[in-house]
Formats: sequence, structure tokens, C-alpha cells
Amino acid sequence: MPYVNIKVTGGSEAPTAAQKAELIGGVTELLARVLGKNPETTVVVIDEVDTDNWGIGGKSVSERRKEGR
Amino acid sequence: MPYVNIKVTGGSEAPTAAQKAELIGGVTELLARVLGKNPETTVVVIDEVDTDNWGIGGKSVSERRKEGR
Amino acid sequence: MPYVNIKVTGGSEAPTAAQKAELIGGVTELLARVLGKNPETTVVVIDEVDTDNWGIGGKSVSERRKEGR
Amino acid sequence: MPYVNIKVTGGSEAPTAAQKAELIGGVTELLARVLGKNPETTVVVIDEVDTDNWGIGGKSVSERRKEGR
Amino acid sequence: MPYVNIKVTGGSEAPTAAQKAELIGGVTELLARVLGKNPETTVVVIDEVDTDNWGIGGKSVSERRKEGR
Amino acid sequence: MPYVNIKVTGGSEAPTAAQKAELIGGVTELLARVLGKNPETTVVVIDEVDTDNWGIGGKSVSERRKEGR
Repeated sequence: MPYVNIKVTGGSEAPTAAQKAELIGGVTELLARVLGKNPETTVVVIDEVDTDNWGIGGKSVSERRKEGR
Repeated sequence: MPYVNIKVTGGSEAPTAAQKAELIGGVTELLARVLGKNPETTVVVIDEVDTDNWGIGGKSVSERRKEGR
Repeated sequence: MPYVNIKVTGGSEAPTAAQKAELIGGVTELLARVLGKNPETTVVVIDEVDTDNWGIGGKSVSERRKEGR
Repeated sequence: MPYVNIKVTGGSEAPTAAQKAELIGGVTELLARVLGKNPETTVVVIDEVDTDNWGIGGKSVSERRKEGR
Repeated sequence: MPYVNIKVTGGSEAPTAAQKAELIGGVTELLARVLGKNPETTVVVIDEVDTDNWGIGGKSVSERRKEGR
Repeated sequence: MPYVNIKVTGGSEAPTAAQKAELIGGVTELLARVLGKNPETTVVVIDEVDTDNWGIGGKSVSERRKEGR
């Protein structure tokens, strides 16, 4: 019954469909292995966030990328 | 003052504007009826999630749809 | 497969277990009726938020309650 | 280490990249000033929500805008 | 820079500190392996939700547990 | 109409009621100043997260604190 939300940067940095499927399978397996949670009712939602809309260190990721970080 | 977030699959499965309006009205009415919450300050946000980005049972909804589920 | 998160004020304003059950049943029924979603995989999570931790109009709900609002 | 999520209406009401950068910088500075949090690990995510998908007072913002509110 | 939120049932079903540490390490490793994300800025937040406050199939988990599910 | 969620570590690191009021006032003022949002309908929710339940760099904050970080 767990619910997992994964937020990553999108746009040119977005994961492929195959990578998203691997994340969904991997985190579902992790919850089954560590906590014995039933995979059938484990829900995973992936959000792709534009680099203008994600900030760390007081700056957007877009700004950081321009600075080479 | 309640805040409600509803996540459903989007893309070809996305709700119409009329359906979204009905969800907003319905959940606001539910909170007023059950808890006496003021509709004027009840906030509802609907997120439409791509079927590649939603997983259940360890697989993405896109994969499940291909398998006829 | 929908996921719904409902945030309401807690503490002395917290809903009872019966009210929470009514919210869970009501919003699940709403999603089945409006969008044809399967109730068996509709997930609802209710968060009870302390009135010190909820703000509206630039003030916490605790401050607003003291002012009689 | 704080995590901040800001949801605002998008589409024609969406903030510009410069406004989003100002929000990211401002809220990071606020958490450093009030709580002494390290800006380097303060994460901010901004979500732009379609006016059809945002409800208040039991109606979507799209409906409210048509009514001149 | 990813952000991951994991919600599981709490109370008598809550994970131990060791299990939570294993979830944090496991999901951080998964994001590094699948997407090449930097573990140093991967943030994980685990929420423990009371069984009265979690619903699936239109009923709270508390009700389901009483029915032996 | 914006909605803001702020997550910080709780327990012995939790903000005081006065600090939470300052965060609520400050972020509401920021949204009014940068985007012209109406403070009366700006909602802020603060979550205090146990240091066992918050991970960064693949370890819980509790573990990091023991290591002097």
C-alpha cells in the first residue's frame, strides 16, 4: 500500500520511458524487500520538473547549468 | 481551509474540464458536509500524470495498458 | 488508480475516525462516479496539520483562532 | 536541508523565469534568516497548475476568471 | 538533486529506524544507478501515516485490518 | 491562491511557534511582492519531519548528526 513520489529534473534531462520503468520496478522491489509491502498495491508517481522550476542553493537549476554546475 | 490534491492518469485518459469541475465541486461539498469546512477557503489541485510516470504493481501504467490491464 | 491527499487542521479540530472513514468512502465514490475509476486501487491519505503549522492570509491558524476567526 | 514546494496557477498566469528565480532566492534566504538553514542544501520546486485544475470555493479558477473574479 | 517522498503506514506497522535507513540508502542508490544522480544532493522524506488516515478500496486501513485484510 | 509546503527537520530541531509564524508571514509576503498574489488566499503548510525520516546523501539526518554533520 505504500505511495512513492519521485521528483527529478525534466526537459533535456528527463528520464526515458525505460528508465522510468526501471525506477518504478526498483523502488517497488525495495519496499517489498525491506518492509514486506505488497507490490500489487505499491503506487509510484514520477514528476519531471523543468530546470527553471527547481532551485537549490538559492538558484534555479537552469542558472546553475549555465554556470557549468 | 482544507487542501486537497487529486492525482489521476492524464494524456488520452485525462479528465475533461467538465469532469474536473465536477471533482472540484464534489470534494469541496464533501468536506463541508462531513467536517463543516468553509467552501470559500477549500483549495483543490488536480494533477494529471502521464501513464509512463505512474506505476503500480511494479510496472508503469503504460506497460499495464499494453498487457490489456 | 487515483491518489488523493486531504490536508485538514488537526489537534482539537481533528476529524474523528468515523469522519475520516466517511471522507475516504466519499472521495473514492466521487472518483468512481465522475471518472469511472476503480475503487479497489483508489488510495486516500489524510494529513492532520497542527494549527501552528497552517497559514492563511499571512498568519497561522493558531493566531487567527485567537483573533476569533 | 529544507524542501519547499510552491504551487501557483500556470498557463497565461504563469510566472516568468526571472520571477521563478526570485521566488527560489527569496524563500531560500527566508529559511536561512529565520531558521539558520544552509542555503546550499535548500531545495525549492515550483509547480505551475492549469486554471482548469485548480479549485477554490467549489469552482475551478477557469470558471472564476470567466465570472470576473 | 532528486527528491523522493515515501509514505507507509505507521503506528504498530511503522518501520524501524534501521529499516528507514535502508530505504533511504536503497532509493538513493537506485537513482544514482539508473539516472546517474548525485547521491550527495538526493533528498528522501518518509511519512508514516496512521491506519485511520490511509484509505484504499473506499475503506480505511484500520477498518480493513479489523476485517482481516 | 498559491499553496506553499515547507518541510524542515523536527524534534529537537523543530522551529518554534514564533519562527513558524515568521515563515508563514514571510513566504506570503514574497508571493505578494514577486507575483502580486492575494495574501488572503495564500495557504502555507509546514511539515516537521523526524531526523530518522529525512535522508540526504544516502543517510538519515539522525546518522549524519551522530557523525557530527
